[in-house]
Amino acid sequence: MQDAPLKHRKEQARPFKKGDTIFLKGDLGNSMFVLLKGQVEIRLDDRVVDVVHEGGIFGEMGLVENAPRAATAVAVTNGAVLSIDEDQFIELVQEQPFFAIKVVRQVADRVRRANATHAVHVQ
Amino acid sequence: MQDAPLKHRKEQARPFKKGDTIFLKGDLGNSMFVLLKGQVEIRLDDRVVDVVHEGGIFGEMGLVENAPRAATAVAVTNGAVLSIDEDQFIELVQEQPFFAIKVVRQVADRVRRANATHAVHVQ
Repeated sequence: MQDAPLKHRKEQARPFKKGDTIFLKGDLGNSMFVLLKGQVEIRLDDRVVDVVHEGGIFGEMGLVENAPRAATAVAVTNGAVLSIDEDQFIELVQEQPFFAIKVVRQVADRVRRANATHAVHVQ
Repeated sequence: MQDAPLKHRKEQARPFKKGDTIFLKGDLGNSMFVLLKGQVEIRLDDRVVDVVHEGGIFGEMGLVENAPRAATAVAVTNGAVLSIDEDQFIELVQEQPFFAIKVVRQVADRVRRANATHAVHVQ
């Protein structure tokens, strides 16, 4: 049910090829991405900090005003993303409030994993 | 403007005192919190991983189904929180979609800081 608004927007899907850089750390971007198909790695200084699978969300820093990309996103397979800027996010959330929960859950889980990784290294 | 729905809900504010534990790592909780007043530290195994100031959001893992608290939240001053469960989050977002962006921004920024801290330690 919560994916219905995304299906209406499939025409805005942007295909990518294996090896493509979707965004680079330091880029100024104003969109987050929903991974419609394929697999994407989030890299920080050549370290893979996250792997995004189909249905996953990434690039959420794009919704933070004037914030550069905090990491680099590289396609590890062919696939497609849906790009969502602030206005589109607001529109999506109005149509389907559960989408907001989905985004918060995925980003919250990323905080948990980032802190857990960190804890291993400082112990 | 984006804080209007919270003002309507001030009657649900929960006061806390300096030194109170708002939640413990491992607890099962189904709410996130908006810090209405005061200051809260997020601790992971006695390490302070974040400091939350007035207007800040924490405990977002509470919106992830069946996920235990990933860290401990301790009040470092007297203050008050607003507790928001999934239903209340959906209601808030319907009234005020910008609230969803605010939450995503704060949680996204926490990912950035967690990964940046990690990078310092592994370099």
